[in-house]
Amino acid sequence: MEIRAQHRVHGGTLTYAQHQSAATGTPMRLSVFTPPGEGPFPYLIWLSGLTCTEDNFTTKAGAYGAAAQHRVAIVAPDTSPRGECVADDPAYDLGQGAGFYIDATQAPWTPHFKMESYITRDLITTVEAAFPLAPKRSIFGHSMGGHGALTLAMKYPELFKSVSAFAPISSPTRCSWGEKAFTAYLDPNRDTWRAHDAALLIEVGRANSFDDILVDQGTGDQFLENQLRPELLEQAAAKAGQKLTLRRQEGYDHSYFFMASFVADHVAFHAARLA
Amino acid sequence: MEIRAQHRVHGGTLTYAQHQSAATGTPMRLSVFTPPGEGPFPYLIWLSGLTCTEDNFTTKAGAYGAAAQHRVAIVAPDTSPRGECVADDPAYDLGQGAGFYIDATQAPWTPHFKMESYITRDLITTVEAAFPLAPKRSIFGHSMGGHGALTLAMKYPELFKSVSAFAPISSPTRCSWGEKAFTAYLDPNRDTWRAHDAALLIEVGRANSFDDILVDQGTGDQFLENQLRPELLEQAAAKAGQKLTLRRQEGYDHSYFFMASFVADHVAFHAARLA
Repeated sequence: MEIRAQHRVHGGTLTYAQHQSAATGTPMRLSVFTPPGEGPFPYLIWLSGLTCTEDNFTTKAGAYGAAAQHRVAIVAPDTSPRGECVADDPAYDLGQGAGFYIDATQAPWTPHFKMESYITRDLITTVEAAFPLAPKRSIFGHSMGGHGALTLAMKYPELFKSVSAFAPISSPTRCSWGEKAFTAYLDPNRDTWRAHDAALLIEVGRANSFDDILVDQGTGDQFLENQLRPELLEQAAAKAGQKLTLRRQEGYDHSYFFMASFVADHVAFHAARLA
Repeated sequence: MEIRAQHRVHGGTLTYAQHQSAATGTPMRLSVFTPPGEGPFPYLIWLSGLTCTEDNFTTKAGAYGAAAQHRVAIVAPDTSPRGECVADDPAYDLGQGAGFYIDATQAPWTPHFKMESYITRDLITTVEAAFPLAPKRSIFGHSMGGHGALTLAMKYPELFKSVSAFAPISSPTRCSWGEKAFTAYLDPNRDTWRAHDAALLIEVGRANSFDDILVDQGTGDQFLENQLRPELLEQAAAKAGQKLTLRRQEGYDHSYFFMASFVADHVAFHAARLA
């Protein structure tokens, strides 16, 4: 774990770091906020959206005041492998910056695009060894990272105490962002895609270890109707008898200004379940 | 006033805008946060530091939650005139991005570098006409913008109810950033520089309309000893019998993580004096 920079913030410590991931075969960057005091601290993993790095949430979400207050740490990784030797695509919604938190099985993406394994194995192991973190984790994210948080929580319920999302891609098999990424990264047989679709996973009861799922969605979000489709989460939760709290926030858009407005609620939601 | 973008944040409205300034002869960009409700709202003007635009504070300071709670607006202008026809310098601490909130009198800076007139005339007039703002203002800023806030408050005490700063350039006539800028922008006769030096203005009683001045300074700030020198503010305040609250914040650096940690205190400080 190579420390790249450290800052004091809200009485705690923010560290930008980099480590080599076996899953992606590349160096991966991340930020880690630890609250004031000794620890070990329970922690939240934040997954960012398309085009983001580890820096967007870190500088713009304004989450660390609430994290210090609730005495939880926050880990924010990058959104994909990166580098000159890593496959890429000129579009913003495929390749570097668009890892979709799944393990690719198709060329040219297979060798490095293993974000599911990276988050659930290398990231967790590395940060728990290098920082004063307890093995008590929750996960949340935005947009593509909301999809990542929801699906990873349901695939690995033993790893996470709770899950929430801002404006998640609720059902990637039923929107163009998801269809494009899954077509590139996954087997052409669409049946295999169902394992990576939050709404479909909720529908078959895979969220049943979570007492509630908190989702915030801005009604002024330009991607609401065509890409995000939170009503599919609601319908799936109703079918499965799963509690899901979907808050439609009037007039908010897809930006970090939306997340900054409600991130303290999400930190409190997770802190209560990590206590 | 041309609206460039709008976002909902913390129940209020954040507007990015641009207007033509008579003082600088250029288009000037800014952001304006107005809290929930009708207004007119008292407001704070935020002045940013070297290299910043209107965007740094807006996206990174995390100030709008506190502003919404205290029902004050915040206006964040750019730090200099900009454009291909505007003089510039390759260094980060001179020219575009480094206006120093003074009116230049020397070539090639004279025609556009009129940030003192811009802030105290054009900006105030324009935002009070275009937004639901009351003519009740306070001013604060960071580093070069802390210098700007302190000096403009003392030069124009009739315009501002209160003033505060983060890591201000406390005495530009006695540090290399200030000497370089004043040498470029101002008359070679250094006696004229005294009118733009916060510590020297405090020393001669020019802050006497302010019941207190709040200054936060990180002890881990790399610019503390050579550029910022807050002890000069303390010494000047002691000489003049001026109340000044200088808080040395252990381990904090010069970044927006420092400001985000204490900005709510500054908003509360000003809101109490604008009430």
